[in-house]
Formats: sequence, C-alpha cells, structure tokens
Amino acid sequence: MTANFSFECIASCNQTKARAGVFQTPHGIVETPRFMPVGTLANVKTITPAQLKDTGAQMVLSNTYHLHLQPGEDIVAGGGGLHKFMGWNGPMLTDSGGFQVFSLSEMRKITEEGVTFRSPRDGRIINLTPERSIAIQNTLGADVIMAFDECPPYPATREEVEAATSRTYRWLERCISAHQRQDQALFGIVQGGVYLDLRAKAALDLKQFDLPGYAIGGVSVGEPPELIAQIVETTAPLLPSDKPRYLMGVGTYREMAMAIASGIDLFDCVIPTRWARHGTAMVQGERWNLKNAKFREDFAPLDETCPCYTCQNFSRAYISHLLRSQEILAYTLLSIHNITELIRFTQKIRNAILQGTFATDFAHWLKPGEVQEEK
Amino acid sequence: MTANFSFECIASCNQTKARAGVFQTPHGIVETPRFMPVGTLANVKTITPAQLKDTGAQMVLSNTYHLHLQPGEDIVAGGGGLHKFMGWNGPMLTDSGGFQVFSLSEMRKITEEGVTFRSPRDGRIINLTPERSIAIQNTLGADVIMAFDECPPYPATREEVEAATSRTYRWLERCISAHQRQDQALFGIVQGGVYLDLRAKAALDLKQFDLPGYAIGGVSVGEPPELIAQIVETTAPLLPSDKPRYLMGVGTYREMAMAIASGIDLFDCVIPTRWARHGTAMVQGERWNLKNAKFREDFAPLDETCPCYTCQNFSRAYISHLLRSQEILAYTLLSIHNITELIRFTQKIRNAILQGTFATDFAHWLKPGEVQEEK
Ligand SMILES: [Zn+2]
Ligand SMILES: [Zn+2]
Repeated sequence: MTANFSFECIASCNQTKARAGVFQTPHGIVETPRFMPVGTLANVKTITPAQLKDTGAQMVLSNTYHLHLQPGEDIVAGGGGLHKFMGWNGPMLTDSGGFQVFSLSEMRKITEEGVTFRSPRDGRIINLTPERSIAIQNTLGADVIMAFDECPPYPATREEVEAATSRTYRWLERCISAHQRQDQALFGIVQGGVYLDLRAKAALDLKQFDLPGYAIGGVSVGEPPELIAQIVETTAPLLPSDKPRYLMGVGTYREMAMAIASGIDLFDCVIPTRWARHGTAMVQGERWNLKNAKFREDFAPLDETCPCYTCQNFSRAYISHLLRSQEILAYTLLSIHNITELIRFTQKIRNAILQGTFATDFAHWLKPGEVQEEK
Repeated sequence: MTANFSFECIASCNQTKARAGVFQTPHGIVETPRFMPVGTLANVKTITPAQLKDTGAQMVLSNTYHLHLQPGEDIVAGGGGLHKFMGWNGPMLTDSGGFQVFSLSEMRKITEEGVTFRSPRDGRIINLTPERSIAIQNTLGADVIMAFDECPPYPATREEVEAATSRTYRWLERCISAHQRQDQALFGIVQGGVYLDLRAKAALDLKQFDLPGYAIGGVSVGEPPELIAQIVETTAPLLPSDKPRYLMGVGTYREMAMAIASGIDLFDCVIPTRWARHGTAMVQGERWNLKNAKFREDFAPLDETCPCYTCQNFSRAYISHLLRSQEILAYTLLSIHNITELIRFTQKIRNAILQGTFATDFAHWLKPGEVQEEK
C-alpha cells in the first residue's frame, strides 16, 4: 500500500470474524465497517453534498461506466476531478465499469482484449479494456479505484464462471500495470459466482498481488441471499487481514450484519435512494411505504431515535402528504433518512465491535431471516 | 393593525415612490421590498426549509386551494399548523384560493354566496365562500391571510370586471366578519382588471377598512407587461402608506423594480422554481438554459458574485451535466440559485433606497424594456 493509504484494525470480535478499522485515504478516513452511499452520475440522487455529509457518509461511490458516457471523464477532469466537480471533498471510490457493461449494455462482445458495447445514450460503439478503465479512473481521480472485471450472470455454468474468473485475474494484472497514480488505491475484485471453490481460489490468487484493498464482486445478481452469505463466509477470511474488504452492491441490514461477521468492512448499495424515490422509508430494520393511508395523520417522525434532518424536522404525515402531491422534496427527505439509517446501522455495529458486544447485540441479524415484507 | 403586526417605513426614495420598510409578524420580520418564494403545497418545490432559509427568504407563501384539496387543512392543523407541518418557522402567508379557483378549476359556478367547483384531484364537489376560505386559512395558521376575491380573466369586458370587483368588495366585508384570529393579519385585494378607474375606486373602497395590509391582485393573467406597470402606478399610491403593499404573482426583475418605484413592498412568483425545473438559471437579469452546449465545459459558477450554496460549490458544467443526466439535484441547485437571485435583487433595491441611490442605480430597470430572451 502506498504512503497515501493505510488500514488499521482497531478491534476484533472474539466470537465472529467482525472487526472495526480505520481506512486512511488522501481525502480523509473511513471508519469501518461502514455503508457507502452511491452517487452513480457524480451525485447521490436528490441530495446535495452538504446533506450527504450530515448523513454520516464518509466514502462515496461513483461510476466509471456512467461518467464515461456522460459527461465524459475529460469534463470531470476539467472541473478539477471528481471531488471538486461534484462538491464532495471526502473519500471517493469509482467502480471500474465492469459490472455495468455486463448488466446494462446491449450488443456487447467480450474478448480477451476487453469489451465492446453500444452506448445506451447515443448508440456509439465503445471499447472498454482493463487499461482503458484504469485510464478513465485515473482521469476521474477517486481515492479508490476498482479493477476491471468480468462479472458472470446468475445462473451461469461452472465453465462460464471459471472462464470469467480467470479472465478477471489476467485483467487484474493488466490493471496493475496500467495504473498510474500513487494517490489512488487500486482494489482487486474476487469473482467466482456461487462456486465456493472458485471463489476461494480467486481470493488466494489475488492475495499474491498485495493490493491496498480487496472486493468481493458478482454477488447480489439474483442469487438467493443464503448463497451470498456462503460466498462471503468462504471468501472474506482468505483475503489479507491487514487490508480493507469491500462487499460490492450489498446494503440490506441482514446481509451487512452477516458479512461483517465474516470480516467485511465496506458496503455500497443503491437501495436507500432508490426506495426513497418509491416512497419507502427504512426504519429500524423495516420497510415502510409512506403512501400507506395509515401515515396520513401520523404526526410522529419516521424514527424518534434518528438524528437526521428529516426526523428532526418533519412528520410521517408531512412526508406522506408530499408523496401524495408528487413533490420531489419527499424523495430528498426519504433519501436523507434512508442513507442515515444504513450508515447508523453500520456505526452501531462498529460501536458494538469496539465494546465487545457485537455477537450478542446483533445475534438476531446473524442468522438467515425472512425477507422483510413492506409494511 | 393588531398588536402582533406592525409596518414601519424606514426610508423613502425622493425621486420615485419607492420605500424601504420593516413588516413585523408573529414569526419574525420581513424587510421590504422583498421577493417571497412560493410553497404551493406546503413546500417550496425541490428544496428544504434549511436551504430556503439560506436563500435569504423571510416570508414564504402557501396555498389555501391546494392545501384544502391535499392534505386538507385539518391534517395541517393536526401537524401543529402550517409552520410546524412544513418546518418553516419564519413568516408565512396563505392566499385565499380565489385565484386558483378561477384559474385552475373546471365546472365552476359563481354566485353571490361563493364558488362551487369540482376537485381536480378526486372529482368531489367543493364549495368555497369567503367564510369558508377564511375558516380554512384560520385553521392553516399563516401569519398573513388573504381575502377571498373574484379574479376576472384577461381579456374581460368592463361590465364583467366591474361585477367581479364589486363582488370582491362585498366578499371582503364577509371575510372581515368571519376572521377569528388576532395572530393573523387579513389583507384585502384590489381587483379591477386593466380598467384603471375601477382599480382606483377599488383601492379607495378597500382603504376604508383600515386593514393591516393590501394587495393588488388579478395582474399577470396574460395582459401585456406595460399594462401591469400602469395598473400598479395607478393603484399603489392610493393604498395607505403606513401598511404593506403586496403585488401578487409578479416576480421578474423589471416588473418588480417598476412596481417598487410605485410603492410596492412585497412580491411572489413561481418562476424561480418553475424555471429551475426547466433547466433555466436567472443570472443578473438574464435567463440561461443550462442545457445549452456552451455550458458543457464552462467551469465557472453560475454567478461569481452570488453567495448561494450552488454558486459557492458547483460549476455551470456540473449543473449542465446533471440536467443532461436528468438528475433531480439539478432542479434543487437551480431553485436555490434562482430564489437567492430574486431575493438579492430586491435586497439590492432595498439597500439602494436606504442609501438614496435607487432611482439612479436602477434607472435601466425603471423603463419599459424588451422581454429578456433566453440565452
Ligand atoms: Zn431519520
Ligand atoms: Zn447563486
């Protein structure tokens, strides 16, 4: 790891593999475990960076694939780089575009060289290779950048997943060679689908590169939640214990708690903002549809224990009114609350790890549970 | 005027009828002349009360007609009244619903008693009378409430306007009788269409009631801008000089400057937020469409002299990117700037009045000008 980055584990759970750490980046620290909000197009949907800071957010994600298509990395660089362009001066992470190319693009063609696809914005043909992804991410300027990987779909045969996983390994070698900036940390991504032996082999293969951080990718692509838990339980302990571990695309209460128990430090997910735009509040482990009639005259805040701007100033009835009136402010208020809620959840876990009470305090989140129905 | 309200004129222009004043309400002062943002449905579209406060907003409007339909005044009262319900603890004003009934409702029927119309939300038949409008406004709880008036369309015959104006007078008498709360100031509304003698008569008739404030209504309904200036020039000086004067629905630079020169103190208009949602910034008297290609790589703030959150943190290129990406945050950032801009414009005029330089500093705004084309 370069001098610009460090990861220190400051406490461990003695009943699980959970740990509390501090990840140092050029734009500040990230206290782990921690949920990271997603700002796909250089903004976290419907909220300002000032509002985002008040949620407790430390590291924020953005997206190489989306930013390459619009506005293009050169405009972001012209605006002073991603931090300055979007007004977020804390730690940032860009993903490599791999996942989006494989999940969003039509007419893609995969070769050993890279991926060719048609831009869904303007139809032009775009080539993305490991070198190109890293060059774009070097230009964007986030603190953490991700290796360009091939993310197999679910379901996929063992042969398909094996081919994608070994290609991801070869692409990682090319990413490492292409990477130019010492003020950016390149994280590798473990693929392997739902095949636990492929996951284990990939983890051990990646470990050899002594990267500043490691991610588990290719989960939450449609497989049952219990498989995610198995993948994480198998893979996370094989990754270096002195580097941050990031589980990509996961951000529900139970999945995060169980992954933390397996040694994961970082999470990201679009659900707090996406659900907000559907009128859904995340409250102490539950999902509430604020358009529900019972909230029309409910003058309590979403969550009396929540310190967020929304809960400190507005009632469920008010948010319900905004939603019924199709007022955009509802999405802003719910996004502020939902992001705060997920970050607080990981902060509470962190505090419990520090105090040695994680395994007992969070016992009910550490076993497979039913999917929470919307209330 | 009750003990809860006062209006003090603290400086006058010696070349025009412009004045600077302080209007005291139970929720704080309003320094006049001043632009008031519109929060139709108990929120100023796309921005939070905290962001609104930072624009320099003092008094905020809301809408009896819209709030009666959704969520209903009883829910607002259940939430502690309009201020608490929407999280704005500064001065507030509700209009009477008269303008909206006449401009938005279908199948309306007007009698001496009041207006019957079909709710555009759910089709139910609604009756609005002077007594009912005041009762709703008493329940909502704004600091300033407006008399229920009949707003004739443009164009309308002299006979039609005369009938509407005298009915507005009789309805005002009923509003005054119905009004219950000493912590709310009831403003009367001068109608009279484009007929200057009807306007003058209405102003003198209303003056007799010694109300805590007076508004000029029924302008900006499609008539040419020069007619608005004539109406205001004729009407404003006939209203009591020791009471605030409010020109309803007007909020462009030139119209406000000219109205201030005729002695108007307060303005409201939806354009700063509506234009924001169309991607338009108001910059030093001009309209800019931020989707225009020339802004794609323009890394300057909207207005270097503007203290707003948007101008202090983001570039034109960033806002242009958000608009091209259809990100809602663009509307928030533009609304913050546009509201700040109009309030600053009235604040600059106020400062010029205090310093005795209004007529010279704002000379170019005080003559009829061409309508600003979008750039
Ligand atoms: Zn909250
Ligand atoms: Zn500004």
